[in-house]
Amino acid sequence: MSRVKQHFLDLFFYPESVAVVGASRYTNTYNFNLVANLVNLKFPGKIYPVNPNTEEILGLKAYPDLNSIEGNIDLVIVSVPASKTPDIIRDCVAKGVKGVVIVAGGFSEIGGGGKKVQDEMFRRLRENGIRAIGPNALSPINTSNNLVIGFRAIEKLPKGKLSFIFQSGLYEPRLNWLLSDFNLYLNKLIDLGNKMDINELDALEYLAQDPETKVIAIHLESIAGDTRAFMRLLKRTSKEKPVIVLKTGRTAAGAKAAFSHTGAIIKSSDAIFDVALKQSGAIRAQSLDEFFDLAKIFEYLPRLRKNRIAVSTIPGGEGVIAVDICELKGFTLAQLSPKTHSKLRSVFPPWDIPVNPFDIGVSDQFHNSIDVYTVLLDALADDQNVDCLAIQISTERLLDLDRVVKLFSEVIKKGKPVVTWAADMLGGSTGIIQQLESNRIPVYPSAERAIKALSALYRYQTGQ
Amino acid sequence: MSRVKQHFLDLFFYPESVAVVGASRYTNTYNFNLVANLVNLKFPGKIYPVNPNTEEILGLKAYPDLNSIEGNIDLVIVSVPASKTPDIIRDCVAKGVKGVVIVAGGFSEIGGGGKKVQDEMFRRLRENGIRAIGPNALSPINTSNNLVIGFRAIEKLPKGKLSFIFQSGLYEPRLNWLLSDFNLYLNKLIDLGNKMDINELDALEYLAQDPETKVIAIHLESIAGDTRAFMRLLKRTSKEKPVIVLKTGRTAAGAKAAFSHTGAIIKSSDAIFDVALKQSGAIRAQSLDEFFDLAKIFEYLPRLRKNRIAVSTIPGGEGVIAVDICELKGFTLAQLSPKTHSKLRSVFPPWDIPVNPFDIGVSDQFHNSIDVYTVLLDALADDQNVDCLAIQISTERLLDLDRVVKLFSEVIKKGKPVVTWAADMLGGSTGIIQQLESNRIPVYPSAERAIKALSALYRYQTGQ
Repeated sequence: MSRVKQHFLDLFFYPESVAVVGASRYTNTYNFNLVANLVNLKFPGKIYPVNPNTEEILGLKAYPDLNSIEGNIDLVIVSVPASKTPDIIRDCVAKGVKGVVIVAGGFSEIGGGGKKVQDEMFRRLRENGIRAIGPNALSPINTSNNLVIGFRAIEKLPKGKLSFIFQSGLYEPRLNWLLSDFNLYLNKLIDLGNKMDINELDALEYLAQDPETKVIAIHLESIAGDTRAFMRLLKRTSKEKPVIVLKTGRTAAGAKAAFSHTGAIIKSSDAIFDVALKQSGAIRAQSLDEFFDLAKIFEYLPRLRKNRIAVSTIPGGEGVIAVDICELKGFTLAQLSPKTHSKLRSVFPPWDIPVNPFDIGVSDQFHNSIDVYTVLLDALADDQNVDCLAIQISTERLLDLDRVVKLFSEVIKKGKPVVTWAADMLGGSTGIIQQLESNRIPVYPSAERAIKALSALYRYQTGQ
Repeated sequence: MSRVKQHFLDLFFYPESVAVVGASRYTNTYNFNLVANLVNLKFPGKIYPVNPNTEEILGLKAYPDLNSIEGNIDLVIVSVPASKTPDIIRDCVAKGVKGVVIVAGGFSEIGGGGKKVQDEMFRRLRENGIRAIGPNALSPINTSNNLVIGFRAIEKLPKGKLSFIFQSGLYEPRLNWLLSDFNLYLNKLIDLGNKMDINELDALEYLAQDPETKVIAIHLESIAGDTRAFMRLLKRTSKEKPVIVLKTGRTAAGAKAAFSHTGAIIKSSDAIFDVALKQSGAIRAQSLDEFFDLAKIFEYLPRLRKNRIAVSTIPGGEGVIAVDICELKGFTLAQLSPKTHSKLRSVFPPWDIPVNPFDIGVSDQFHNSIDVYTVLLDALADDQNVDCLAIQISTERLLDLDRVVKLFSEVIKKGKPVVTWAADMLGGSTGIIQQLESNRIPVYPSAERAIKALSALYRYQTGQ
């Protein structure tokens, strides 16, 4: 909280006081959760609900307007309809506020009239030295001080080193899923919306210098500022920390859809963008799933500099699939040392010579799963010919989970990234996956997603 | 059970008696489940456990050997180690058995000696008119008579019109997941293993003429028989029912891995196979996820002959992604009729003209989700310019699930395929997804997977 402000966006991520204009006392509304998340997650700064029709929200005094608040306000969240937003901005000016988030849509993305109102609002803000996120944006999140501005009740806030920039609320309906079942460990999140003022250049510059952010993931539909300046910044940043980019609006129809929802014009072709992105050293995600998959693996795992992989699957047929993906993604199957081979003999059936990829399914018929994993992972961890591991698991068979977690963690501690995928992500297996992932052992739903993610780790390091 | 046998594989799928050699009374073993699944799922035929060391398994009399069984045996499951399997085959000959499944591995896939033993076993079987699945195979499953030969306890067996051919036990560790959380509605499943005798040609020929099978999904690493004959059969079959093909061992490394696990040699290059497959009219799945995604959509939904799609997402940013995928996959965004536009006005915010793709997220701030869905789905169902729908859902917001199910079902009944994807597949949402899918409303985890699956429906019909 008492962090020294070094960048103007610190005001948005480390405010000492937040006013929520439009705060609601009705628990089934979005605007109730704007205040409830701050209260329930114990944001330590001052919280000022602003609502002329109530005296109190969640035990906090409610104010009729911004000017009635006694103290300073670092950050104002303006969550009233577009038609009323300019009036509130006038109050922000009067109160000497320096940072606002404009939540409502209905500005530049609807064209003509909306664009004019937005331009006028922006002029007023700029004249008064007020910086703004939005409009049409819901931000920010900062897990280090439990600052969560969000429409849905956040139940779990796992803290980590991953920070996001979103062009719009793409993350919003899946936020609880990302934080709980998918186990992303978040540091900061900013949704830029229509990017009237603060844009992806500001946000990236901020996260690049943020010591709490080790991995940056950016969702973009358009580039608001100077594309070359953005690419230069991306290149500089990528040398320090991995930057994952999801660029949507790739097709003509997609670009048109993007325009109608944030008013942004997509200037360059996707092919040109793709080339520029590759040159910058950033990692492009090809789909939304891949965006989150890559964000996860960079936050979870150590760096990967060599590409000799060991693969283990439960049925042999899955090994064929995994090896196909390894080959397509630039891995070579590790040639194991003779010592590893002799260690593995003890858990393989007599007729089966243990070779990479390993088929654990057969061993499972003769030994306990946990014994097979113990011998296998210990041997691979010690084998100097193995740089990384891709291991299929079955949540039905992970009986001694603590031991399994310890085994995988040991391999990772030795600097060898491990990805796993589950053959069976049954409804009841959420707890198992969470225990693995709370120890930063990534579990993906398929060999393809696991190995693709691992290959991004390798490509980032080697610039391929 | 009393079905007239028209094809030799009827013996395997509709046996009136099954003997399990190697049956175990120890509940934590695979071989216990071979018998337990038949008993627990109420297979109506005779079940003969064979085990010389026990008198009884699960209330059934156990026999010391096949010859001690009084009655006829239609099908013998041989689940003893490879070294003992040839002896049991001798007993099968003596007993006059006509169908066997050889479960053990350790034959042709280990090369030299194993291949020799397998060849000798095959010679003996053929001389005595015995047909065999395997070795190195676990089969069959037939949901219409609750015949399930499987190593793990099957908890749920949803019955449908989808039948699988697997080259190996690829499905095995995920069988419970496929049948429960993923909600595949199965009819028959055959795992071919080393394909010593029965191969993909036999299995495809059988399922092609099977009246209970409406959709066929085939996993192949190699083609055992005549490739041209297989492609001709594929072409004939594809005219009658959709056939989805997952071909693995695509790369050199993958082909090598395939050889070491079933002993099969991959003869032609993947590119040649791909061309032949396209000409046959079969649908190629590019990944294991896609294989199951396509199997699901063909079983669930009516055929799709035109490509005008309506898209609805919760945040607008997701609409951009969905529209990109629609364009890449051959859909065109439906131009809605003026009547539809005026119907939708009532649930869209005043400044927002309802256009395809629809952003439901904004409407949700002003209306109940269920009211928005009601107006939207009713209007799209009646609009003659709309051929199919892709709708994002949030399991957190589907409060009146019965109504939602009814709404989607109405659209599908009018001959318009609907795919949905969930923004949040939280651990607790399994029940919601199951209720949708038990009504054959498919729920995918992403826009990409939903729309790709829908595009396969369209491509199959139009031969693109």
